[in-house]
Amino acid sequence: MLKKEIRVVGIDDAPFNKFKKGNVVVIGAVFRGGSWLDGILSTKVGIDGNNATKKIADMISKCKFKPQLQCIFLNGIAVGGFNVIDVEELSKKTKLPVIVIIRKNPDIEKIKKTLIKINKKSKIKLIEKAGSVIQIGEIYVQLTGLEIEKAKELIEITCTRSLIPEPIRIAHLIASGITYGESKGKA
Amino acid sequence: MLKKEIRVVGIDDAPFNKFKKGNVVVIGAVFRGGSWLDGILSTKVGIDGNNATKKIADMISKCKFKPQLQCIFLNGIAVGGFNVIDVEELSKKTKLPVIVIIRKNPDIEKIKKTLIKINKKSKIKLIEKAGSVIQIGEIYVQLTGLEIEKAKELIEITCTRSLIPEPIRIAHLIASGITYGESKGKA
Repeated sequence: MLKKEIRVVGIDDAPFNKFKKGNVVVIGAVFRGGSWLDGILSTKVGIDGNNATKKIADMISKCKFKPQLQCIFLNGIAVGGFNVIDVEELSKKTKLPVIVIIRKNPDIEKIKKTLIKINKKSKIKLIEKAGSVIQIGEIYVQLTGLEIEKAKELIEITCTRSLIPEPIRIAHLIASGITYGESKGKA
Repeated sequence: MLKKEIRVVGIDDAPFNKFKKGNVVVIGAVFRGGSWLDGILSTKVGIDGNNATKKIADMISKCKFKPQLQCIFLNGIAVGGFNVIDVEELSKKTKLPVIVIIRKNPDIEKIKKTLIKINKKSKIKLIEKAGSVIQIGEIYVQLTGLEIEKAKELIEITCTRSLIPEPIRIAHLIASGITYGESKGKA
């Protein structure tokens, strides 16, 4: 049984213009369980770049909440377009389990085709490495460094307001609010 | 009796280098009562400038949450250093009551002396116009457009986690988190 106040971090990126080069802001929302927002982290990653794993690992490893953190929630496996996160590496660097949250069962074949088309074939193996897509309740997840039973429990504790964990919902609100001047859309 | 889910917005600015000119980010955290973060607003105001009232009024008036909003919480009367907010004007423009939250009883005489020293004498009347500083529990407030009884009730509903209203605590966390890469200090 996990504590209701377990400390977790949810990650989401800001919206960006996919026709421009440059960086995009990535937000980490540190929560105790599903209701108490403890702190906000931020970093920048290259649009369609290759530095997401390192940047996010550094952001988490260096933050003052690190000793208490028990799990990382990612909103999908990529930030800034096709800056695909090496989930295994992220888990190793931070010594934390990672739950990738997927709102809809993703069309992996379509993503792979796009990656081949834009010459990013090497990223396909990162997606494959993140493990099988598992349905938990009404959402889909990929798990690294934890068992499905623990993931279920973490999702139950953190999904206090919607179908997706609060740390991700709030990271999304913040990332879109600081970009558009007003938060839009769903995580 | 106000509803526990009453919609309010808390405003705070990001930390900035006071020796540089430029803009500073101002965050609005839209809450239902003291626990549900509904959305994030953002704008930019000039450091030591004169546009805070207009910028914050526009940010609030144009947001999608406007029809439900019942009150504005400010973390002090100025953002971006001495960009002092005309609270009466802000209340008039947004048609909303404003509660200025002050953590410590401010040394008004000291602030006035500084404003005279830096040739910002005109801003003194904005501070005076914001009304008497009233103690409610362990914090101090200035009220515009609402009675003290209603202010007490609003503070009781929104102070779920600390001595200051959640919308301000969270606006502060976000503003400092996106600036430093990690949220620091207290609102």
